[in-house]
Amino acid sequence: SAAAVESLDYEVIENYAYREEQAQRSKFWVPYYIMLKWLFALLIGVGTGLAAIFINLAVENFSGWKYTATFAIIKHSYFVGFFVYTIFNLALVFSSVYIVTNFAPAAAGSGIPEIKGYLNGVDTHGILLFRTLVGKIFGSIGSVGGGLALGKEGPLVHTGACIASLLGQVTCGCAAGVAAAFRAPVGGVLFALEEVTSWWRSHLMWRVFFTSAIVAVVVRSAMNWCNSGKCGHFGAGGFIIWDISGGQENYSYQELFPMAIIGVIGGLLGALFNQLTLYITKWRRTYLHKKGKRVQIFEACLISLVTSTISFVLPLLRKCSPCPQLETNSGIECPHPPGTDGNFVNFYCSKDKEYNDLATIFFNTQDDAIRNLFSAKTFHEYSAQSLITFLVMFYSLAVVTFGTAVPAGQFVPGIMIGSTYGRLVGMFVVNGKLYKKLNIEEGTYALLGAASFLGGSMRMTVSLCVIMVEITNNLQLLPLIMLVLLISKAVGDFFNEGLYEVQARLRGIPLLDSRPKQVMRNMNAKDACKNQKVVCLPRVSRVVDIVSVLRTNKHNGFPVVDRGQNGESLVIGLILRSHLLVLLQAKVDFQNSPFPCGPGVLNRHNFSDFVKPASSKGKSIDDIHLTEDELGLYLDLAPFLNPSPYIVPEDMSLAKVYNLFRQLGLRHIFVVPRPSRVVGLITRKDLLLEE
Amino acid sequence: SAAAVESLDYEVIENYAYREEQAQRSKFWVPYYIMLKWLFALLIGVGTGLAAIFINLAVENFSGWKYTATFAIIKHSYFVGFFVYTIFNLALVFSSVYIVTNFAPAAAGSGIPEIKGYLNGVDTHGILLFRTLVGKIFGSIGSVGGGLALGKEGPLVHTGACIASLLGQVTCGCAAGVAAAFRAPVGGVLFALEEVTSWWRSHLMWRVFFTSAIVAVVVRSAMNWCNSGKCGHFGAGGFIIWDISGGQENYSYQELFPMAIIGVIGGLLGALFNQLTLYITKWRRTYLHKKGKRVQIFEACLISLVTSTISFVLPLLRKCSPCPQLETNSGIECPHPPGTDGNFVNFYCSKDKEYNDLATIFFNTQDDAIRNLFSAKTFHEYSAQSLITFLVMFYSLAVVTFGTAVPAGQFVPGIMIGSTYGRLVGMFVVNGKLYKKLNIEEGTYALLGAASFLGGSMRMTVSLCVIMVEITNNLQLLPLIMLVLLISKAVGDFFNEGLYEVQARLRGIPLLDSRPKQVMRNMNAKDACKNQKVVCLPRVSRVVDIVSVLRTNKHNGFPVVDRGQNGESLVIGLILRSHLLVLLQAKVDFQNSPFPCGPGVLNRHNFSDFVKPASSKGKSIDDIHLTEDELGLYLDLAPFLNPSPYIVPEDMSLAKVYNLFRQLGLRHIFVVPRPSRVVGLITRKDLLLEE
Ligand SMILES: Nc1ncnc2c1ncn2[C@@H]1O[C@H](COP(=O)(O)OP(=O)(O)OP(=O)(O)O)[C@@H](O)[C@H]1O
Ligand SMILES: Nc1ncnc2c1ncn2[C@@H]1O[C@H](COP(=O)(O)OP(=O)(O)OP(=O)(O)O)[C@@H](O)[C@H]1O
Ligand SMILES: [Mg+2]
Ligand SMILES: [Mg+2]
Repeated sequence: SAAAVESLDYEVIENYAYREEQAQRSKFWVPYYIMLKWLFALLIGVGTGLAAIFINLAVENFSGWKYTATFAIIKHSYFVGFFVYTIFNLALVFSSVYIVTNFAPAAAGSGIPEIKGYLNGVDTHGILLFRTLVGKIFGSIGSVGGGLALGKEGPLVHTGACIASLLGQVTCGCAAGVAAAFRAPVGGVLFALEEVTSWWRSHLMWRVFFTSAIVAVVVRSAMNWCNSGKCGHFGAGGFIIWDISGGQENYSYQELFPMAIIGVIGGLLGALFNQLTLYITKWRRTYLHKKGKRVQIFEACLISLVTSTISFVLPLLRKCSPCPQLETNSGIECPHPPGTDGNFVNFYCSKDKEYNDLATIFFNTQDDAIRNLFSAKTFHEYSAQSLITFLVMFYSLAVVTFGTAVPAGQFVPGIMIGSTYGRLVGMFVVNGKLYKKLNIEEGTYALLGAASFLGGSMRMTVSLCVIMVEITNNLQLLPLIMLVLLISKAVGDFFNEGLYEVQARLRGIPLLDSRPKQVMRNMNAKDACKNQKVVCLPRVSRVVDIVSVLRTNKHNGFPVVDRGQNGESLVIGLILRSHLLVLLQAKVDFQNSPFPCGPGVLNRHNFSDFVKPASSKGKSIDDIHLTEDELGLYLDLAPFLNPSPYIVPEDMSLAKVYNLFRQLGLRHIFVVPRPSRVVGLITRKDLLLEE
Repeated sequence: SAAAVESLDYEVIENYAYREEQAQRSKFWVPYYIMLKWLFALLIGVGTGLAAIFINLAVENFSGWKYTATFAIIKHSYFVGFFVYTIFNLALVFSSVYIVTNFAPAAAGSGIPEIKGYLNGVDTHGILLFRTLVGKIFGSIGSVGGGLALGKEGPLVHTGACIASLLGQVTCGCAAGVAAAFRAPVGGVLFALEEVTSWWRSHLMWRVFFTSAIVAVVVRSAMNWCNSGKCGHFGAGGFIIWDISGGQENYSYQELFPMAIIGVIGGLLGALFNQLTLYITKWRRTYLHKKGKRVQIFEACLISLVTSTISFVLPLLRKCSPCPQLETNSGIECPHPPGTDGNFVNFYCSKDKEYNDLATIFFNTQDDAIRNLFSAKTFHEYSAQSLITFLVMFYSLAVVTFGTAVPAGQFVPGIMIGSTYGRLVGMFVVNGKLYKKLNIEEGTYALLGAASFLGGSMRMTVSLCVIMVEITNNLQLLPLIMLVLLISKAVGDFFNEGLYEVQARLRGIPLLDSRPKQVMRNMNAKDACKNQKVVCLPRVSRVVDIVSVLRTNKHNGFPVVDRGQNGESLVIGLILRSHLLVLLQAKVDFQNSPFPCGPGVLNRHNFSDFVKPASSKGKSIDDIHLTEDELGLYLDLAPFLNPSPYIVPEDMSLAKVYNLFRQLGLRHIFVVPRPSRVVGLITRKDLLLEE
């Protein structure tokens, strides 16, 4: 699948069409352009916000109906309840996988590795198309509503990016997606900054932030509106804000040790997760998915059945516990009334005042399960046995589910897994002799566990920290979350790369790291292109030659050479394959004479003719049909080429070339011989023109 | 003063000494280096945190003593009280200005424009020295403790940067400074990111964040320790966290209009502030400060006297108001007991149950005044008359104080000014017919006013937003703060540049914007260095020639040319003035023969010999004494030059050159003729080496 990947051109191609468009711009162009960008940012924010609300609304309502119906039925028969529950899930998952396989194959998975690649400079075909957007939205409703061990947050980021791509600002969309998924505007900006974009201009930041804030406003307004009960089941659970403001506000230094242990566990389990999902994706690719859509659909349905069975039957096997003594004004009921969300679910319990701790987390939406795991003032709600059972089963389910052909995020499953072992550690700490006197909340440990697993698997740092703070609405815990992340990332890095990097590599998306590799310091530019026979084109080429060059190799850029006044050869620029294809298809520029065309005759193309639509496949040389006559004509490339690609002398160290390439988001760099003289020197002073 | 500015070299000079050091590195070098960087980040965090605590402790205690003493004395005589108050302030201000003028001139002002310049690539001499650090810390204690209309936040950022500079990580220090000043770790990171650094690698972010979090932990621990009363007056007031969590949690859409008005006012007053301070700084420079230290000292003392008089006498002239009916469990007392902080100060009131609203904000530390202005549940505490009086007087004081030779920040004064008119607008809204039914808190409007003024003056966006959220500990208000900032920045931008840009320009610090100017699109590299006669050096130069080149011009970099095998000329690199000076001073490399020296004879310099200490003046050619004999010798420059500076072809558009220069943090770019051939092409694939 590496063939479906192509580099992006962030560089402006200053060909004649561009220069003409520049010249024709009125003085209102710049303000107009800025207004437009901001308007688009606004639209992206609104669009992503609405998409998020739509998805959440749908998911919450489907889950609501499912659990209400099931709880109603199990009063009479557990068997019929199980049947209804399973069928409901199966139907949703089937619709999701059907949409994805038949309609929008690029909508499978989380999409974050591809978006990351896109902003790093590599386009994966189809990833940002409108149909992918539609498939992602409806597909994730099915897969999340269907109760699989996956989340809707990754898909939301992808959704945001798709919406933004329609308006040309993918970075904004990314941030908007995170902001919408977690209601974390600051986290969104930092996510876009840290995890996704490779080059970043500071004037971008404000617009990205604006978009995220718009999302926050849209989501908030919608939730206010829904609070009055107009949105069915949505509003009760819904958006993930796991407010733990009632929990532990302070911590003592003795607690740092168990917290560090959580960090280590997170690093280990996270790295293991990355490794297992790598194997399973490879295995799927080789044995399963090449057999076609049917196998993919069957696979997803099978996993749905297994998931339903496990989440229903395991709690049945668990013995119920008696309700604890609760403070009357704590607002917590045991067991809570069926159909509402809360702790202490009564599921297959013989007595009235009992609850099933495994069902509380397993037989529940993931959002509610997390809320229960994070909850404070509920000491010893869960037995160690239940937590361990859940951890093992859910971890396995998450690994197996990863890579099925449905939209799937790893955030929420990660939080589930992490908070389970976090709470487990918290229980031991509360019971432990050493820590008897401290005011410790198990919910806080669950939160730290969640952070540690995400850190150990995704290796994000700053943005994750801020997202955790924003979703828990608690600034006090920031240093603790940091500590845990620091440890889990370090431990994880010891074993493998982050989840997104591993997956990107697997999909043939060549990500460039922000730092050059060590060996590059001892190599120079020439070493990097040893044995290369550069394919060049003369300024005025015969059409047949151009066609044959395009046919015989797959390069996307060709240096164009010309003769100077004294007959010496001169490199006059770089022509892109895609531009050549545009010219070959248009045919209007073909000429009879083998000499350069004069200036002024050219007005046949707009700059927009040369702009390739994002994420599309583009034309191929095989689609273009030329007659014998046309093949015999000539084409003067000078007006269409990029007249000044970046150049490096052949003995520049590769580390420096790397920085140039990476920081400026380039696609091609010319390696040239040492220059013979210096025409001028540019320093800061020369660049401080007064406008 | 533009002469004191010099560009920085972020580029690695890959000369022989560097290459040799690279070659000698063991495989443990990279982990060792990373450990070291993290250790330094830790130290910077601890250092900045301690410095912040020290400054706050000192300031709070000085202020505490001052107000306690004054309040005790005015029970007997207002006249004596005024005298003591004034003298106390004068003594502190005098000590501050004395330290600064005699010991650390670079410690005057906020330092942020200079730091901004440093990270943009321009070094202002003296700005990061140890003596500046010391001067800044003690100077700002004096100036802030002395009650001038300035803040300690800007100086703290400078302090952080100085500490970090000793360890070589100025960006971390910047973030640490903000984190320490506002206890806002996330805000600190974003500040460093948005406002300060021009180029930013994503791997830097995590370390910067770590440093900020360390600061937060250090400050928090210290405050916990102080809470038990061990730190005198510190702890009661102290660090600015203006928690408004008791205030308005929600807002209705009708309120957006008055909030937009606050934004407009902020933009106007902020832009006016920038303009007035520009004039006053210019005036000071031309007429006042060149007359020497005495004038500067006199000026600061005069301003101290005026400030003391205004802040003492104006409240005296104000009629007291009767205490309002307060809820018993609100925790607010009227009047509050003298010597504690809180609303409702009894100052020169005839009756017992009365308070002086002007004294509450004027005759108080700025931190407490802001807390009072932000406070919720205190409707109509202030009369419009008092607020307007305060606004006018304090605004004037802030303008006049700006530019005196003491450490001075503009954050807190800006918050004071902004929250005054914000509260004023809030009062009208609460009284207004339209808004009668809403639950509006004047304190919230004060907060928005503060944001608007800072936005209108400093034009920061994302970081300011986050800082405001962190200091008020309230995530709900984020969208409102954003709205206000968006408007105030837009209005301000209509009139002039941001405060720091204006001041940097005035000080001759040439900041490069993140975007190229429009005219650059129509210029090319050659245009930028028209009429330039490039000063080159031959590979093996006579010492006397080198000396004369260095004497006759002020350039800092010189292309070095050589002859190739066929006698054609070749540019072999760039030699820096500072490196030439090192070589001339060391003299060990002088040789008798005018031919290139062989390889292998060179082991006379370490890489560290060539590293210029930050912020120091460096050597000058006039400091180097050479005998006649030495002048006649030769020097082979090849081993010492930067063998591959970045090059651009002469007709590359200046916009592209600008991006190259700015994104990579360069100092010199060679403009060369078009190359005659392409040796190779580098694409993403060539840079994906497996290590
Ligand atoms: N015109 C060319 N002549 C010779 N070698 C080239 C040319 N263009 C690219 N290469 C080399 O061919 C290899 C494959 O590059 P490739 O053809 O994929 O580049 P590209 O398609 O232009 O860029 P990308 O694949 O990133 O979009 C690389 O090592 C590259 O240096
Ligand atoms: N070696 C040189 N020969 C000719 N012109 C130069 C040379 N170096 C710099 N210039 C030009 O002289 C002008 C002043 O530059 P200046 O000498 O201040 O550069 P610099 O000192 O090397 O860099 P900086 O001042 O940023 O540290 C600029 O227009 C620059 O292009
Ligand atoms: Mg290719
Ligand atoms: Mg200079």
